Amino acid sequence: MLKTRVTELFGIEHPVIQGGMIWTSGWKLAVAVARAGGLGLIGAGSMTPELLEEHLTKARSAAPDAPWGVNLPIFYDHAETMIDVMLRHGVRIVFTSGGTPRRFTARLKAAGCVVTHVCSTPTMARKCEEAGVDAVVVEGFEAGGHNGREELTTMVLVPQAVDRCGIPVIAAGGIHDGRSMAAAFALGAEGVQVGTRFAATAEASCHPAFKRAIVEAPDTATMLILRKLIPVRVIMNDWAVDMARAESDGASREELLERLGVKRSRRGMFEGDLAQGELEIGQAAGAITDLPPAGDVLSRMVLECEAVLARLGVMAQP
Amino acid sequence: MLKTRVTELFGIEHPVIQGGMIWTSGWKLAVAVARAGGLGLIGAGSMTPELLEEHLTKARSAAPDAPWGVNLPIFYDHAETMIDVMLRHGVRIVFTSGGTPRRFTARLKAAGCVVTHVCSTPTMARKCEEAGVDAVVVEGFEAGGHNGREELTTMVLVPQAVDRCGIPVIAAGGIHDGRSMAAAFALGAEGVQVGTRFAATAEASCHPAFKRAIVEAPDTATMLILRKLIPVRVIMNDWAVDMARAESDGASREELLERLGVKRSRRGMFEGDLAQGELEIGQAAGAITDLPPAGDVLSRMVLECEAVLARLGVMAQP
Repeated sequence: MLKTRVTELFGIEHPVIQGGMIWTSGWKLAVAVARAGGLGLIGAGSMTPELLEEHLTKARSAAPDAPWGVNLPIFYDHAETMIDVMLRHGVRIVFTSGGTPRRFTARLKAAGCVVTHVCSTPTMARKCEEAGVDAVVVEGFEAGGHNGREELTTMVLVPQAVDRCGIPVIAAGGIHDGRSMAAAFALGAEGVQVGTRFAATAEASCHPAFKRAIVEAPDTATMLILRKLIPVRVIMNDWAVDMARAESDGASREELLERLGVKRSRRGMFEGDLAQGELEIGQAAGAITDLPPAGDVLSRMVLECEAVLARLGVMAQP
Repeated sequence: MLKTRVTELFGIEHPVIQGGMIWTSGWKLAVAVARAGGLGLIGAGSMTPELLEEHLTKARSAAPDAPWGVNLPIFYDHAETMIDVMLRHGVRIVFTSGGTPRRFTARLKAAGCVVTHVCSTPTMARKCEEAGVDAVVVEGFEAGGHNGREELTTMVLVPQAVDRCGIPVIAAGGIHDGRSMAAAFALGAEGVQVGTRFAATAEASCHPAFKRAIVEAPDTATMLILRKLIPVRVIMNDWAVDMARAESDGASREELLERLGVKRSRRGMFEGDLAQGELEIGQAAGAITDLPPAGDVLSRMVLECEAVLARLGVMAQP
């Protein structure tokens, strides 16, 4: 029912995109969302080329014609190899994030892909359009995981991006129910990208203990840390509190990198170490109280959004 | 046209409240907003009791029957004296902020005031209701000036506060045009509190150079600083960059207080020192491009909001 340029662009029923999330959005989640009428994204950020290949093969076999794609952070060294894999497997919907959209957009477009870049300021949104992408995701400060240094929130980011762009703008950060989805449309977005809410679903590949932590998170559970490295929003567990204290005490980048260590996010999100792992999630975690199938999340978001839009329409009547 | 419990509660035509802003919202701005059909608030945070008395006398004389009130940060020592002044002058609409709503709500209610408290988390919103206030403002991270430590944005704050409160919720932080106003209604708010947009108006009492700085601010002009003292959102001028660097280098509270000095906000907002003054403003500054009369700001916000609500209503039609 909610038709926008975003539903047209991706050939989807509802203007809802499940955001790519490391350790969390594998082929199962992407396929579940795609089958329910949204756009599912395999989050390739935590994958090797071999693992991505496996997920692409499984997604293709499970849902050959459903609308799913891949989100790829392009600041990694192996980004080029990952794109080779994606194109070899016939991926035609690609969301790039991190780095500059000028790096791969032309190649992806030439290969027939619909290309969307994720960014965090209105000025960058305009640059994405100039780089030739088909749509842009603007992601606010409330979003989980890696986050823009500018700290602009969804409320101020979306309308300014809409004013500067001719291409469709997709709102991300804090969108977790039908109300926030309707709010994104009020701001001028033509679609929403939803991460956190889809992490707490049956099909998400993250550890069950992490999913429970999302459900149990109070309203103020997350904070943005690691501003001196790459800012990231996480649940404030023992590890994160230690990191925040070190930052506040003036720790250098090198000290912070040492404290961060390696495989911290795998330890938290995939292995379920709730005390010492990195638990990337958005502020919306505070509003999440259940672990339904992803298709249910999508259908109730859309139904609630439609009801909110109808209520707002009545409010405008004299 | 947009009638909610907030318009009823304050006896206003439009559900728009002009936020109390130090050095910026004196009697002229409050009266201009009140005459245009919104709720105007005299920002008492930067006033002595004597100066507040002067503003109350002038507002009463200029607009004896218009809906205006006072915003009072209640963490200052002289808060009690300020309330004495307000009650003596017959103020009947009071917004308190900072500190606990338990401190003054009973006294203000007993004196016949409509009382609203400003807070920054859903849990605190619930506590405001329990303290007996008539309405609650929840203010997101994008807002200018003093800001909650929890860093929740308007998009996630409002719907969770609405879910926990029976009293009307007023959204603040990032609301600057008809789109963001409509978004607040989508989230379940029944009114909006608008600061930054009203700072850039003819009637605001802040320095003209500060107003020009708001108009010229790019989309990423502000940041939240002073997390170790009281977090505050400001334009990143020379002084603020120095403070942020000191914080990042691990400066103690004492060192930061010394760097802050006294009268920093007066120097910036009232005296117009754009390099070394504290320039408190919200992220929405990036979206502001003119300095109209406050009444024009209000009427175009409301008109745009109504148009957006009508557009959303059409979107929901099958």
